[in-house]
Amino acid sequence: MPQPGRLFGLGVGPGDPELITLKALRLLQAAPVVAYHAAKGKKGNALTIVERYLNDNQLLVPLIYPVTTEILPAHMNYEAIVSDFYGEITGVLRAHLDAGQDVAVIAEGDPFFYGSFMYIHDRLAEDYQTEVVPGVCSILGGAAVLGAPLVYRNQTLTVLSGVLPSEDLKVRLGATEAAAIMKLGKNLAKVRGVIEELGLMDRALYVERATMDAQRIVPLAEVDPDTSPYFSLILVPGEKWQGGSECP
Amino acid sequence: MPQPGRLFGLGVGPGDPELITLKALRLLQAAPVVAYHAAKGKKGNALTIVERYLNDNQLLVPLIYPVTTEILPAHMNYEAIVSDFYGEITGVLRAHLDAGQDVAVIAEGDPFFYGSFMYIHDRLAEDYQTEVVPGVCSILGGAAVLGAPLVYRNQTLTVLSGVLPSEDLKVRLGATEAAAIMKLGKNLAKVRGVIEELGLMDRALYVERATMDAQRIVPLAEVDPDTSPYFSLILVPGEKWQGGSECP
Repeated sequence: MPQPGRLFGLGVGPGDPELITLKALRLLQAAPVVAYHAAKGKKGNALTIVERYLNDNQLLVPLIYPVTTEILPAHMNYEAIVSDFYGEITGVLRAHLDAGQDVAVIAEGDPFFYGSFMYIHDRLAEDYQTEVVPGVCSILGGAAVLGAPLVYRNQTLTVLSGVLPSEDLKVRLGATEAAAIMKLGKNLAKVRGVIEELGLMDRALYVERATMDAQRIVPLAEVDPDTSPYFSLILVPGEKWQGGSECP
Repeated sequence: MPQPGRLFGLGVGPGDPELITLKALRLLQAAPVVAYHAAKGKKGNALTIVERYLNDNQLLVPLIYPVTTEILPAHMNYEAIVSDFYGEITGVLRAHLDAGQDVAVIAEGDPFFYGSFMYIHDRLAEDYQTEVVPGVCSILGGAAVLGAPLVYRNQTLTVLSGVLPSEDLKVRLGATEAAAIMKLGKNLAKVRGVIEELGLMDRALYVERATMDAQRIVPLAEVDPDTSPYFSLILVPGEKWQGGSECP
Protein backbone atom coordinates (compact mmCIF):
# COMPACT_ATOMS: atom_id res chain seq x y z
CA MET A 1 0.00 0.00 0.00
CA PRO A 2 1.45 3.39 -0.91
CA GLN A 3 1.38 6.30 1.51
CA PRO A 4 -2.04 7.93 0.90
CA GLY A 5 -2.11 11.19 -1.05
CA ARG A 6 -2.96 14.54 0.46
CA LEU A 7 -6.17 16.47 -0.19
CA PHE A 8 -5.90 20.17 -1.00
CA GLY A 9 -8.77 22.64 -1.20
CA LEU A 10 -7.39 25.54 -3.18
CA GLY A 11 -9.12 28.90 -3.33
CA VAL A 12 -8.37 30.33 -6.76
CA GLY A 13 -9.95 33.74 -6.23
CA PRO A 14 -12.94 35.55 -7.69
CA GLY A 15 -12.20 35.35 -11.40
CA ASP A 16 -9.09 37.23 -12.53
CA PRO A 17 -6.42 34.50 -12.84
CA GLU A 18 -3.91 36.94 -11.36
CA LEU A 19 -5.91 36.97 -8.11
CA ILE A 20 -4.75 33.48 -7.21
CA THR A 21 -2.28 33.35 -4.32
CA LEU A 22 1.31 32.18 -4.71
CA LYS A 23 0.55 29.26 -2.41
CA ALA A 24 -2.52 28.04 -4.28
CA LEU A 25 -0.59 28.28 -7.55
CA ARG A 26 2.35 26.31 -6.17
CA LEU A 27 0.16 23.52 -4.80
CA LEU A 28 -2.00 23.49 -7.93
CA GLN A 29 0.95 23.00 -10.22
CA ALA A 30 2.43 20.27 -8.03
CA ALA A 31 -0.78 18.20 -7.87
CA PRO A 32 -0.97 15.15 -10.14
CA VAL A 33 -4.79 15.21 -9.89
CA VAL A 34 -6.89 18.37 -10.18
CA ALA A 35 -10.62 18.12 -9.53
CA TYR A 36 -13.10 20.87 -10.39
CA HIS A 37 -16.83 21.46 -10.10
CA ALA A 38 -18.87 22.32 -13.16
CA ALA A 39 -22.38 22.19 -14.49
CA LYS A 40 -23.04 19.61 -17.21
CA GLY A 41 -21.55 20.69 -20.53
CA LYS A 42 -19.71 23.63 -18.96
CA LYS A 43 -16.14 24.19 -17.99
CA GLY A 44 -16.94 25.89 -14.69
CA ASN A 45 -15.44 29.07 -13.26
CA ALA A 46 -12.67 27.47 -11.23
CA LEU A 47 -11.17 25.61 -14.20
CA THR A 48 -11.54 28.67 -16.41
CA ILE A 49 -9.51 30.64 -13.88
CA VAL A 50 -6.60 28.21 -13.53
CA GLU A 51 -6.50 26.53 -16.96
CA ARG A 52 -3.49 28.56 -18.03
CA TYR A 53 -1.50 27.31 -15.05
CA LEU A 54 -1.97 23.58 -15.69
CA ASN A 55 0.38 21.25 -17.53
CA ASP A 56 -0.20 18.17 -19.69
CA ASN A 57 0.85 15.71 -17.03
CA GLN A 58 -1.98 16.61 -14.67
CA LEU A 59 -5.12 14.50 -14.60
CA LEU A 60 -8.28 16.61 -14.66
CA VAL A 61 -11.26 15.18 -12.79
CA PRO A 62 -14.56 16.95 -13.50
CA LEU A 63 -17.15 16.87 -10.71
CA ILE A 64 -20.37 17.44 -12.64
CA TYR A 65 -23.36 18.66 -10.63
CA PRO A 66 -26.28 16.26 -11.13
CA VAL A 67 -28.90 19.04 -11.07
CA THR A 68 -28.69 22.69 -11.97
CA THR A 69 -31.41 24.06 -9.73
CA GLU A 70 -32.86 23.36 -6.32
CA ILE A 71 -36.39 23.46 -7.68
CA LEU A 72 -37.09 19.98 -8.96
CA PRO A 73 -40.17 17.98 -10.00
CA ALA A 74 -42.07 16.68 -6.98
CA HIS A 75 -40.85 13.10 -7.35
CA MET A 76 -37.19 14.16 -7.11
CA ASN A 77 -35.54 14.86 -3.78
CA TYR A 78 -32.84 17.51 -4.05
CA GLU A 79 -31.13 16.63 -0.79
CA ALA A 80 -30.96 12.93 -1.66
CA ILE A 81 -29.65 13.59 -5.17
CA VAL A 82 -26.94 15.93 -3.94
CA SER A 83 -25.98 13.64 -1.07
CA ASP A 84 -25.60 10.75 -3.55
CA PHE A 85 -23.51 13.02 -5.75
CA TYR A 86 -21.04 13.81 -2.99
CA GLY A 87 -20.92 10.16 -1.99
CA GLU A 88 -20.05 9.26 -5.57
CA ILE A 89 -17.43 11.93 -6.23
CA THR A 90 -15.68 11.44 -2.91
CA GLY A 91 -15.43 7.78 -3.92
CA VAL A 92 -13.58 8.83 -7.05
CA LEU A 93 -11.28 11.13 -5.08
CA ARG A 94 -10.64 8.44 -2.47
CA ALA A 95 -9.41 6.10 -5.19
CA HIS A 96 -6.76 8.63 -6.24
CA LEU A 97 -5.80 9.42 -2.64
CA ASP A 98 -5.55 5.73 -1.74
CA ALA A 99 -3.30 5.23 -4.75
CA GLY A 100 -0.93 7.76 -3.20
CA GLN A 101 -1.78 10.69 -5.45
CA ASP A 102 -2.24 14.20 -4.08
CA VAL A 103 -5.59 15.66 -5.15
CA ALA A 104 -6.18 19.40 -5.52
CA VAL A 105 -9.82 20.46 -5.56
CA ILE A 106 -10.03 23.96 -6.97
CA ALA A 107 -12.64 26.36 -5.67
CA GLU A 108 -13.68 29.69 -7.12
CA GLY A 109 -13.22 32.36 -4.45
CA ASP A 110 -12.50 30.69 -1.12
CA PRO A 111 -13.06 26.97 -0.42
CA PHE A 112 -14.78 27.50 2.95
CA PHE A 113 -16.96 30.45 1.97
CA TYR A 114 -20.11 28.91 0.42
CA GLY A 115 -17.86 26.55 -1.53
CA SER A 116 -18.75 23.11 -2.82
CA PHE A 117 -15.39 21.94 -1.49
CA MET A 118 -16.88 22.09 2.02
CA TYR A 119 -18.94 18.98 1.36
CA ILE A 120 -15.89 17.10 0.13
CA HIS A 121 -13.91 18.32 3.13
CA ASP A 122 -16.60 17.12 5.52
CA ARG A 123 -16.47 13.64 4.00
CA LEU A 124 -12.69 13.22 3.58
CA ALA A 125 -10.75 15.44 5.99
CA GLU A 126 -10.81 12.87 8.79
CA ASP A 127 -9.38 10.16 6.58
CA TYR A 128 -6.67 12.01 4.65
CA GLN A 129 -4.12 14.70 5.37
CA THR A 130 -5.98 17.82 4.26
CA GLU A 131 -4.92 21.41 3.72
CA VAL A 132 -7.06 24.35 2.73
CA VAL A 133 -5.59 27.41 1.05
CA PRO A 134 -7.82 30.43 1.49
CA GLY A 135 -8.65 32.60 -1.50
CA VAL A 136 -9.93 36.07 -2.28
CA CYS A 137 -13.73 35.78 -2.04
CA SER A 138 -16.10 37.30 -4.58
CA ILE A 139 -17.31 39.94 -2.15
CA LEU A 140 -13.87 41.48 -1.77
CA GLY A 141 -13.27 41.16 -5.51
CA GLY A 142 -16.53 43.05 -6.01
CA ALA A 143 -15.70 45.79 -3.51
CA ALA A 144 -12.32 46.32 -5.19
CA VAL A 145 -13.68 46.73 -8.73
CA LEU A 146 -16.52 48.92 -7.47
CA GLY A 147 -14.03 51.12 -5.62
CA ALA A 148 -16.22 50.69 -2.56
CA PRO A 149 -14.66 50.45 0.90
CA LEU A 150 -16.86 47.86 2.56
CA VAL A 151 -16.73 48.13 6.36
CA TYR A 152 -15.32 50.84 8.61
CA ARG A 153 -14.15 50.54 12.21
CA ASN A 154 -16.75 48.69 14.26
CA GLN A 155 -19.44 48.33 11.63
CA THR A 156 -21.08 44.94 11.23
CA LEU A 157 -20.95 43.22 7.85
CA THR A 158 -23.73 40.77 7.05
CA VAL A 159 -23.35 38.34 4.17
CA LEU A 160 -26.70 37.17 2.87
CA SER A 161 -27.94 34.68 0.31
CA GLY A 162 -30.43 36.08 -2.20
CA VAL A 163 -32.33 32.81 -1.85
CA LEU A 164 -33.71 33.91 1.55
CA PRO A 165 -37.37 34.99 1.72
CA SER A 166 -38.11 38.75 1.49
CA GLU A 167 -39.18 39.04 5.10
CA ASP A 168 -35.98 37.45 6.31
CA LEU A 169 -33.81 39.60 4.03
CA LYS A 170 -35.61 42.69 5.27
CA VAL A 171 -34.98 41.98 8.94
CA ARG A 172 -31.34 41.09 8.42
CA LEU A 173 -30.56 43.94 6.04
CA GLY A 174 -32.33 46.39 8.30
CA ALA A 175 -30.18 45.37 11.27
CA THR A 176 -26.71 45.75 9.77
CA GLU A 177 -24.38 48.60 8.84
CA ALA A 178 -22.97 46.93 5.73
CA ALA A 179 -24.10 43.99 3.63
CA ALA A 180 -23.18 41.76 0.75
CA ILE A 181 -25.88 39.77 -1.02
CA MET A 182 -24.81 36.78 -3.08
CA LYS A 183 -26.68 34.20 -5.16
CA LEU A 184 -28.80 36.66 -7.07
CA GLY A 185 -29.82 35.50 -10.56
CA LYS A 186 -33.54 34.70 -10.32
CA ASN A 187 -33.65 36.30 -6.87
CA LEU A 188 -32.67 39.75 -8.15
CA ALA A 189 -36.16 41.28 -8.36
CA LYS A 190 -37.07 40.12 -4.87
CA VAL A 191 -33.82 41.35 -3.33
CA ARG A 192 -34.05 44.70 -5.09
CA GLY A 193 -37.60 45.11 -3.82
CA VAL A 194 -36.38 44.71 -0.24
CA ILE A 195 -33.57 47.20 -0.79
CA GLU A 196 -36.06 49.72 -2.18
CA GLU A 197 -38.39 49.18 0.77
CA LEU A 198 -35.57 49.84 3.20
CA GLY A 199 -34.54 53.02 1.38
CA LEU A 200 -31.10 51.65 0.56
CA MET A 201 -31.14 52.04 -3.24
CA ASP A 202 -28.78 55.02 -3.17
CA ARG A 203 -26.16 53.05 -1.24
CA ALA A 204 -26.50 49.69 -3.02
CA LEU A 205 -24.00 48.72 -5.73
CA TYR A 206 -24.28 45.92 -8.26
CA VAL A 207 -21.66 43.95 -10.16
CA GLU A 208 -21.78 40.85 -12.35
CA ARG A 209 -18.83 38.47 -12.56
CA ALA A 210 -16.49 40.78 -10.64
CA THR A 211 -12.83 40.64 -11.85
CA MET A 212 -13.70 38.22 -14.69
CA ASP A 213 -13.37 39.13 -18.37
CA ALA A 214 -17.15 39.40 -18.60
CA GLN A 215 -17.37 41.74 -15.59
CA ARG A 216 -20.24 44.21 -15.83
CA ILE A 217 -21.05 47.11 -13.50
CA VAL A 218 -24.51 48.67 -13.81
CA PRO A 219 -26.63 50.78 -11.48
CA LEU A 220 -28.84 48.39 -9.51
CA ALA A 221 -31.97 50.24 -10.66
CA GLU A 222 -31.13 49.41 -14.29
CA VAL A 223 -30.46 45.68 -13.94
CA ASP A 224 -32.76 43.47 -15.99
CA PRO A 225 -33.91 40.82 -13.50
CA ASP A 226 -34.37 38.30 -16.31
CA THR A 227 -30.72 38.31 -17.29
CA SER A 228 -28.94 38.85 -13.96
CA PRO A 229 -26.55 35.92 -13.60
CA TYR A 230 -26.11 33.77 -10.50
CA PHE A 231 -22.58 35.17 -10.14
CA SER A 232 -23.69 38.70 -9.47
CA LEU A 233 -23.45 40.56 -6.23
CA ILE A 234 -25.05 43.47 -4.42
CA LEU A 235 -22.98 45.39 -1.90
CA VAL A 236 -24.30 47.90 0.60
CA PRO A 237 -21.05 49.43 1.90
CA GLY A 238 -20.92 50.86 5.38
CA GLU A 239 -21.27 54.60 5.65
CA LYS A 240 -17.95 56.38 5.46
CA TRP A 241 -16.31 57.32 8.71
CA GLN A 242 -14.25 60.46 8.35
CA GLY A 243 -12.05 60.26 11.39
CA GLY A 244 -9.86 57.29 10.59
CA SER A 245 -9.55 53.77 11.87
CA GLU A 246 -8.67 52.73 15.34
CA CYS A 247 -5.12 51.62 15.74
CA PRO A 248 -4.00 48.06 16.32
CA MET B 1 4.28 68.93 -14.63
CA PRO B 2 4.73 65.17 -14.94
CA GLN B 3 1.77 62.85 -15.40
CA PRO B 4 0.56 62.14 -11.84
CA GLY B 5 1.36 58.75 -10.36
CA ARG B 6 -1.23 56.07 -9.68
CA LEU B 7 -2.41 55.03 -6.24
CA PHE B 8 -2.60 51.30 -5.48
CA GLY B 9 -4.21 49.73 -2.44
CA LEU B 10 -2.72 46.26 -2.28
CA GLY B 11 -4.16 43.53 -0.10
CA VAL B 12 -1.25 41.36 0.99
CA GLY B 13 -3.26 38.65 2.74
CA PRO B 14 -3.61 37.52 6.34
CA GLY B 15 0.00 36.84 7.27
CA ASP B 16 1.68 34.02 5.35
CA PRO B 17 3.72 35.82 2.65
CA GLU B 18 2.71 33.07 0.21
CA LEU B 19 -0.93 34.17 0.56
CA ILE B 20 -0.33 37.31 -1.47
CA THR B 21 -1.90 37.26 -4.94
CA LEU B 22 0.14 37.32 -8.13
CA LYS B 23 -1.37 40.68 -8.97
CA ALA B 24 -0.57 42.36 -5.67
CA LEU B 25 2.99 41.04 -5.89
CA ARG B 26 3.45 42.34 -9.44
CA LEU B 27 2.16 45.82 -8.59
CA LEU B 28 4.09 45.89 -5.32
CA GLN B 29 7.39 45.14 -7.00
CA ALA B 30 6.76 47.70 -9.74
CA ALA B 31 5.97 50.56 -7.34
CA PRO B 32 8.73 53.10 -6.68
CA VAL B 33 7.02 54.14 -3.42
CA VAL B 34 5.62 51.67 -0.90
CA ALA B 35 3.67 53.04 2.07
CA TYR B 36 2.74 50.96 5.11
CA HIS B 37 0.89 51.47 8.37
CA ALA B 38 2.58 50.66 11.66
CA ALA B 39 2.44 51.51 15.32
CA LYS B 40 5.28 53.65 16.66
CA GLY B 41 8.48 51.64 16.98
CA LYS B 42 7.00 48.64 15.17
CA LYS B 43 7.36 47.30 11.68
CA GLY B 44 3.68 46.51 11.24
CA ASN B 45 2.12 43.35 9.85
CA ALA B 46 1.83 44.45 6.23
CA LEU B 47 5.54 45.27 5.88
CA THR B 48 6.50 42.10 7.71
CA ILE B 49 4.51 40.13 5.16
CA VAL B 50 5.98 41.69 2.01
CA GLU B 51 9.51 42.62 3.14
CA ARG B 52 11.05 39.70 1.30
CA TYR B 53 9.54 40.87 -1.98
CA LEU B 54 10.94 44.42 -1.93
CA ASN B 55 14.10 45.66 -3.60
CA ASP B 56 16.61 48.35 -2.68
CA ASN B 57 15.35 50.87 -5.21
CA GLN B 58 11.94 51.20 -3.58
CA LEU B 59 11.24 54.05 -1.20
CA LEU B 60 9.51 52.91 1.99
CA VAL B 61 7.11 55.42 3.54
CA PRO B 62 6.00 54.52 7.08
CA LEU B 63 2.57 55.78 8.13
CA ILE B 64 2.86 55.78 11.91
CA TYR B 65 -0.38 55.79 13.88
CA PRO B 66 -0.42 58.76 16.28
CA VAL B 67 -2.24 56.85 19.02
CA THR B 68 -2.36 53.18 19.85
CA THR B 69 -5.75 52.99 21.51
CA GLU B 70 -9.15 54.63 21.18
CA ILE B 71 -9.31 55.25 24.90
CA LEU B 72 -7.50 58.52 25.49
CA PRO B 73 -7.19 61.05 28.32
CA ALA B 74 -10.24 63.34 28.47
CA HIS B 75 -8.44 66.32 26.94
CA MET B 76 -7.55 64.38 23.78
CA ASN B 77 -10.05 63.89 21.00
CA TYR B 78 -9.52 60.59 19.18
CA GLU B 79 -11.49 61.56 16.09
CA ALA B 80 -9.62 64.85 15.68
CA ILE B 81 -6.21 63.23 16.17
CA VAL B 82 -6.91 60.53 13.64
CA SER B 83 -8.43 62.93 11.16
CA ASP B 84 -5.31 65.12 11.41
CA PHE B 85 -3.19 62.01 10.92
CA TYR B 86 -4.91 61.09 7.66
CA GLY B 87 -4.71 64.68 6.48
CA GLU B 88 -0.99 64.66 7.12
CA ILE B 89 -0.14 61.31 5.56
CA THR B 90 -2.26 61.88 2.48
CA GLY B 91 -0.27 65.10 2.06
CA VAL B 92 2.91 63.05 1.97
CA LEU B 93 1.42 60.59 -0.51
CA ARG B 94 0.10 63.43 -2.69
CA ALA B 95 3.61 64.81 -3.00
CA HIS B 96 4.84 61.52 -4.44
CA LEU B 97 1.83 61.14 -6.72
CA ASP B 98 2.15 64.72 -7.97
CA ALA B 99 5.80 64.06 -8.73
CA GLY B 100 4.66 61.28 -11.06
CA GLN B 101 5.48 58.35 -8.82
CA ASP B 102 3.15 55.41 -8.39
CA VAL B 103 2.42 54.75 -4.72
CA ALA B 104 1.49 51.31 -3.38
CA VAL B 105 -0.16 51.30 0.03
CA ILE B 106 0.05 47.80 1.43
CA ALA B 107 -2.76 46.47 3.59
CA GLU B 108 -2.79 43.35 5.72
CA GLY B 109 -5.71 41.18 4.61
CA ASP B 110 -7.90 43.13 2.23
CA PRO B 111 -7.73 46.93 1.77
CA PHE B 112 -11.50 47.46 1.89
CA PHE B 113 -12.26 45.10 4.78
CA TYR B 114 -11.69 47.14 7.95
CA GLY B 115 -8.47 48.43 6.41
CA SER B 116 -6.72 51.70 7.16
CA PHE B 117 -6.29 52.13 3.41
CA MET B 118 -9.99 53.01 3.21
CA TYR B 119 -9.35 56.42 4.78
CA ILE B 120 -6.59 57.12 2.30
CA HIS B 121 -8.81 55.95 -0.55
CA ASP B 122 -11.64 58.25 0.58
CA ARG B 123 -9.28 61.22 0.53
CA LEU B 124 -7.34 60.52 -2.70
CA ALA B 125 -9.34 58.33 -5.08
CA GLU B 126 -11.12 61.26 -6.69
CA ASP B 127 -7.88 63.04 -7.46
CA TYR B 128 -5.66 60.21 -8.69
CA GLN B 129 -6.06 57.10 -10.78
CA THR B 130 -6.64 54.47 -8.10
CA GLU B 131 -6.74 50.69 -8.20
CA VAL B 132 -7.49 48.32 -5.36
CA VAL B 133 -6.27 44.73 -5.41
CA PRO B 134 -8.35 42.55 -3.08
CA GLY B 135 -6.62 40.21 -0.67
CA VAL B 136 -7.37 37.14 1.41
CA CYS B 137 -8.95 38.48 4.59
CA SER B 138 -8.05 37.26 8.08
CA ILE B 139 -11.38 35.50 8.54
CA LEU B 140 -10.81 33.17 5.60
CA GLY B 141 -7.20 32.67 6.66
CA GLY B 142 -8.52 31.69 10.08
CA ALA B 143 -11.16 29.30 8.73
CA ALA B 144 -8.52 27.59 6.57
CA VAL B 145 -6.05 26.95 9.39
CA LEU B 146 -8.83 25.88 11.74
CA GLY B 147 -10.12 23.43 9.10
CA ALA B 148 -13.53 24.97 9.64
CA PRO B 149 -15.93 25.37 6.70
CA LEU B 150 -17.53 28.71 7.46
CA VAL B 151 -20.92 29.10 5.74
CA TYR B 152 -23.09 26.53 3.98
CA ARG B 153 -25.73 27.11 1.31
CA ASN B 154 -28.02 29.94 2.39
CA GLN B 155 -26.64 30.55 5.86
CA THR B 156 -25.99 34.14 6.89
CA LEU B 157 -22.49 35.14 7.95
CA THR B 158 -22.17 38.08 10.33
CA VAL B 159 -18.81 39.77 10.83
CA LEU B 160 -18.63 41.57 14.16
CA SER B 161 -16.17 43.80 15.94
CA GLY B 162 -15.29 42.73 19.47
CA VAL B 163 -15.42 46.42 20.42
CA LEU B 164 -19.25 46.34 20.35
CA PRO B 165 -21.11 46.36 23.69
CA SER B 166 -22.21 42.97 25.10
CA GLU B 167 -25.88 43.61 24.52
CA ASP B 168 -25.29 44.45 20.88
CA LEU B 169 -23.05 41.44 20.36
CA LYS B 170 -25.67 39.22 21.94
CA VAL B 171 -28.47 40.35 19.66
CA ARG B 172 -26.37 40.09 16.50
CA LEU B 173 -24.76 36.78 17.37
CA GLY B 174 -28.11 35.34 18.36
CA ALA B 175 -29.62 36.24 14.99
CA THR B 176 -27.09 34.66 12.64
CA GLU B 177 -26.15 31.16 11.48
CA ALA B 178 -22.41 31.83 11.32
CA ALA B 179 -20.18 34.55 12.71
CA ALA B 180 -16.67 35.90 12.77
CA ILE B 181 -15.61 38.21 15.57
CA MET B 182 -12.56 40.38 15.01
CA LYS B 183 -10.72 42.96 17.12
CA LEU B 184 -10.53 40.89 20.25
CA GLY B 185 -7.53 41.66 22.48
CA LYS B 186 -8.95 43.45 25.51
CA ASN B 187 -12.47 42.58 24.40
CA LEU B 188 -11.91 38.85 24.69
CA ALA B 189 -13.47 38.31 28.11
CA LYS B 190 -16.58 40.27 27.20
CA VAL B 191 -17.03 38.48 23.87
CA ARG B 192 -16.48 35.07 25.43
CA GLY B 193 -19.07 35.88 28.07
CA VAL B 194 -21.65 36.56 25.38
CA ILE B 195 -20.78 33.33 23.56
CA GLU B 196 -21.19 31.40 26.80
CA GLU B 197 -24.53 33.05 27.49
CA LEU B 198 -25.78 32.08 24.04
CA GLY B 199 -24.66 28.48 24.51
CA LEU B 200 -22.24 28.68 21.58
CA MET B 201 -19.01 27.67 23.33
CA ASP B 202 -19.00 24.20 21.76
CA ARG B 203 -19.16 25.69 18.26
CA ALA B 204 -16.80 28.65 18.73
CA LEU B 205 -13.18 28.41 17.54
CA TYR B 206 -10.29 30.69 18.40
CA VAL B 207 -7.07 31.50 16.58
CA GLU B 208 -4.33 34.09 17.10
CA ARG B 209 -2.37 35.50 14.16
CA ALA B 210 -3.78 33.01 11.66
CA THR B 211 -1.29 31.93 8.95
CA MET B 212 1.55 33.96 10.53
CA ASP B 213 4.67 32.37 12.01
CA ALA B 214 3.34 33.10 15.50
CA GLN B 215 -0.03 31.48 14.78
CA ARG B 216 -1.60 29.88 17.84
CA ILE B 217 -4.75 27.78 18.05
CA VAL B 218 -6.23 27.18 21.51
CA PRO B 219 -9.68 26.17 22.74
CA LEU B 220 -11.60 29.39 23.41
CA ALA B 221 -12.29 28.30 27.00
CA GLU B 222 -8.54 28.21 27.70
CA VAL B 223 -7.57 31.62 26.31
CA ASP B 224 -6.04 33.98 28.85
CA PRO B 225 -7.95 37.23 28.31
CA ASP B 226 -4.96 39.26 29.50
CA THR B 227 -2.70 38.06 26.71
CA SER B 228 -5.10 37.65 23.78
CA PRO B 229 -3.70 39.83 21.00
CA TYR B 230 -5.69 42.28 18.88
CA PHE B 231 -5.03 40.07 15.86
CA SER B 232 -7.01 37.16 17.16
CA LEU B 233 -10.29 35.89 15.86
CA ILE B 234 -13.30 33.89 16.98
CA LEU B 235 -15.26 31.94 14.39
CA VAL B 236 -18.65 30.36 14.90
CA PRO B 237 -18.96 28.27 11.73
CA GLY B 238 -22.39 27.49 10.33
CA GLU B 239 -23.78 24.08 11.19
CA LYS B 240 -22.83 21.46 8.64
CA TRP B 241 -25.30 20.67 5.93
CA GLN B 242 -25.05 17.05 4.85
CA GLY B 243 -26.84 17.18 1.56
CA GLY B 244 -24.44 19.23 -0.52
CA SER B 245 -24.48 22.67 -2.02
CA GLU B 246 -26.98 24.02 -4.47
CA CYS B 247 -25.73 24.15 -8.00
CA PRO B 248 -24.82 27.31 -9.84
